[in-house]
Amino acid sequence: MTLNCSIGEGRLGILGGMGSEATAYFLRTLAQRSQATSDQEHIPFVLLSCPEIPDRSSAMEAGTVDVPSIIRSRLEQLEDAGCGAVAIPCNTAHYWRRDFASSLQIPLIDMVSATAQHAARLGARSAIVLGTRSTMKHRLYGDSLEKLCIRLMDVEEATIRATGCAIALAKSGDPDSSWKQLAHALHACRALHPDVIILGCTELPMVVPPGTMAVDLVDSDACLADACVRWWQSLSTGVEEPDIQFSEEIANEP
Amino acid sequence: MTLNCSIGEGRLGILGGMGSEATAYFLRTLAQRSQATSDQEHIPFVLLSCPEIPDRSSAMEAGTVDVPSIIRSRLEQLEDAGCGAVAIPCNTAHYWRRDFASSLQIPLIDMVSATAQHAARLGARSAIVLGTRSTMKHRLYGDSLEKLCIRLMDVEEATIRATGCAIALAKSGDPDSSWKQLAHALHACRALHPDVIILGCTELPMVVPPGTMAVDLVDSDACLADACVRWWQSLSTGVEEPDIQFSEEIANEP
Repeated sequence: MTLNCSIGEGRLGILGGMGSEATAYFLRTLAQRSQATSDQEHIPFVLLSCPEIPDRSSAMEAGTVDVPSIIRSRLEQLEDAGCGAVAIPCNTAHYWRRDFASSLQIPLIDMVSATAQHAARLGARSAIVLGTRSTMKHRLYGDSLEKLCIRLMDVEEATIRATGCAIALAKSGDPDSSWKQLAHALHACRALHPDVIILGCTELPMVVPPGTMAVDLVDSDACLADACVRWWQSLSTGVEEPDIQFSEEIANEP
Repeated sequence: MTLNCSIGEGRLGILGGMGSEATAYFLRTLAQRSQATSDQEHIPFVLLSCPEIPDRSSAMEAGTVDVPSIIRSRLEQLEDAGCGAVAIPCNTAHYWRRDFASSLQIPLIDMVSATAQHAARLGARSAIVLGTRSTMKHRLYGDSLEKLCIRLMDVEEATIRATGCAIALAKSGDPDSSWKQLAHALHACRALHPDVIILGCTELPMVVPPGTMAVDLVDSDACLADACVRWWQSLSTGVEEPDIQFSEEIANEP
């Protein structure tokens, strides 16, 4: 049998490896949230795993264009491979999402917008976002939250530091120590009484011990996974759900 | 920046989705066993996730050629995309591994051979393999184990049934019930005193509760991951390790 089609035809494209274990955790979340009861009901996709992409936070701080250029080129490879949409399970990379979306003909399923919309559905009016130093300092979630009338609250330097330690420990394969740092950060956040705390880095949901995901936590991994499932379902039903985050939505943002 | 290269160039190719959560678990294992301390030290790969591939066990029982043809075509797509080697985190699909390896110009990193070799390194002289009914009934591991002087032991029908239940429960997203069934099967196996018990289905390692992977269990997921890491390291060092499972090794099997 010869398949006369591109490798991504009819599939979701995922750009991963930022980092590798976090991407695996995202795929587990995607599988678990697909409500599939047999292998064949899951979403077909191509994952291009590019751990070689240099650190996103450093690139943001330095203002260099190399890193967003590499990411954009990799997304274009997924488009050229025939994928119907692309998703990036990395919050920090979404700093350049307008740039990515504008260079693609296919939708970019936007993790930041999907997560902000979920917070709004929960009725949140205020939120703290925990993520990389760059995500927090550059208020990555600011526009998306404020458009939905959710106030993005600032945190103290010690909380940013503890979150950064949690991310670094997760990346180095020490989830227990990572969770201790994240628990410190969460404790400090809760003293400020936000309606929700967004886990806005893909390294964070995976270190939360099973069964302890509190109701005030919004998991950006799960929000992106749900948006991917809705995109996939919209393909088969032909009905576009209004809250699926496509590139057009991003292009229309102020 | 334009990347004038194929999507898989310089990358490992992985054919997944059989099933989807098991593939995510394999990728986590691959990430954890890569001994990487930063994002950039992980293995770059393309995962073609094809949950739409019909059930492998049913195809083996029916003797139909459609399913191996689809798998072979998907592996060829990974080869055409420029991948340097391919791996399939699905034991049952390895029933057709000679067919796949002979149609590829790049190595197929063979999960069954890698797992058998690991059992040999542990000093095993006898083994029970737990997997799909087809894997067990058709003695998928027979040749590879016997070549290494490891006797493949048979089990009772009740053990095959319990293992099949464990796999089905894992696929349906019920790891706790799956583990109960697997624990029944393991108990029956241990009464036969094999040197090792091979978890020869990718659905099984993921339901073993953390910290309870006993020393007599051989995890085929971990063995494939280690073989992939060795392949990747051999690319950068230029030194081929003798026990990396390439297609030539399979072609030379009796």
